[in-house]
Amino acid sequence: MAMEAALTSAVLVIGNEVLSGRTQDANLGFLAARLADLGIPVIEACVVQDDQDRIVEAVNALRARVTYVFTTGGIGPTHDDITAAAIAKAFGVPVVRDPEAERRLRTHYGDGFVNAARLKMAEVPEGAILVDNPVSTAPGFRIGNVFVLAGVPAIAQAMFDALAPGLTGGPPVVSRTVSCRIPEGDFAADLTEVVARHARVSIGSYPYFRAGKIGVSLVVRGVDPDAVDRAAEEVEAMVRRLGGEPLV
Amino acid sequence: MAMEAALTSAVLVIGNEVLSGRTQDANLGFLAARLADLGIPVIEACVVQDDQDRIVEAVNALRARVTYVFTTGGIGPTHDDITAAAIAKAFGVPVVRDPEAERRLRTHYGDGFVNAARLKMAEVPEGAILVDNPVSTAPGFRIGNVFVLAGVPAIAQAMFDALAPGLTGGPPVVSRTVSCRIPEGDFAADLTEVVARHARVSIGSYPYFRAGKIGVSLVVRGVDPDAVDRAAEEVEAMVRRLGGEPLV
Repeated sequence: MAMEAALTSAVLVIGNEVLSGRTQDANLGFLAARLADLGIPVIEACVVQDDQDRIVEAVNALRARVTYVFTTGGIGPTHDDITAAAIAKAFGVPVVRDPEAERRLRTHYGDGFVNAARLKMAEVPEGAILVDNPVSTAPGFRIGNVFVLAGVPAIAQAMFDALAPGLTGGPPVVSRTVSCRIPEGDFAADLTEVVARHARVSIGSYPYFRAGKIGVSLVVRGVDPDAVDRAAEEVEAMVRRLGGEPLV
Repeated sequence: MAMEAALTSAVLVIGNEVLSGRTQDANLGFLAARLADLGIPVIEACVVQDDQDRIVEAVNALRARVTYVFTTGGIGPTHDDITAAAIAKAFGVPVVRDPEAERRLRTHYGDGFVNAARLKMAEVPEGAILVDNPVSTAPGFRIGNVFVLAGVPAIAQAMFDALAPGLTGGPPVVSRTVSCRIPEGDFAADLTEVVARHARVSIGSYPYFRAGKIGVSLVVRGVDPDAVDRAAEEVEAMVRRLGGEPLV
């Protein structure tokens, strides 16, 4: 399972809606793909309810383990938007109204539409740095190694684009996939030997059913493109040796 | 956020592929919807890598907090299938080969195709009870309050169908959704008052962009259908009072 990667990240999805089965989360996939490209692979993700104690506990556990944590959800104006208060509690700091965030919200909404609920979106943990929101103005923020983003995917993605240039990245994680129709049990022993010879990459075996057919994707992943190529070529050779045809 | 529910569950997704952004997890949504129907709502989910220490830590944290934990992934024959060993470690018991699981695998594959890798799929934590796999034979298992399912969605779903009759359920979680085009900031204060009057349900406010239009879904959820109806009617009345039209 090992893959060399000095920098790591985690995603904390905040919100009852994903846990109810009503909404399919789209932020983890987006963040995972982008962070892999930036050489900061996501090594863990959690989904918690809109519950302050659980958010505090989860963010403190994750931020101690990885380079960066990204949270999504819970930064709007309604009663169930409690992320800023929870993150402040996790860092042991008070919530303050950020003057620049307030200025942006007042400009965006105009004086007639600024109310207490909307100004809640200017509240951040003391010491936080704003993350721009080019879609709907209300900013995200960063405190320590934690980035707090919106839950609506289009906004979360725009916020990530805004903050990404400020991240310390590493060599991108690259991958090569070899698919075949050999059942896993027929190549498992051979694959274990390939894995043992390629300690610098991670090799995953992912069976799938598609259009009624069983297949397996063997995915080689790592930060050294040559190491990934060498391992993928051995995987391909293994598939041919076992009488399979690598599928593109 | 409160919702009365005596029984709760958690989902632990095991596998590097979801964290790489390559694969969109489909098991959380399925399990969350089914478990809500069974009155055992999912209150937390985690995604961890194929790493024994992290699986042990996560499963032990979750099983102490909820009625049932469901894990998905990592029970196949390849080197990256380490779930059974990790769950055994979490429970402090050895891994043993289950005779009934072995019998099923030998029958399914036939003597010529049973090898060490396939027989790994008969290994379970000591004391575990098998969960039937009507799709591809290799069983899942239950130990304590933890159910271990396959990662391939079609198999995870079939396993869940097989085990569901044995779960202790509660009154189903029901929900009513009122959608409108009023911006959240315009109803946040009124909604907070509705929430305060309906402590037995949870009310969530979920903004969305769809076909270029902004909308909000207000979702009332709870185990008492009358309480859900009463709260949803107040939400609908609030939308009309603020000049909005509840959308179906």
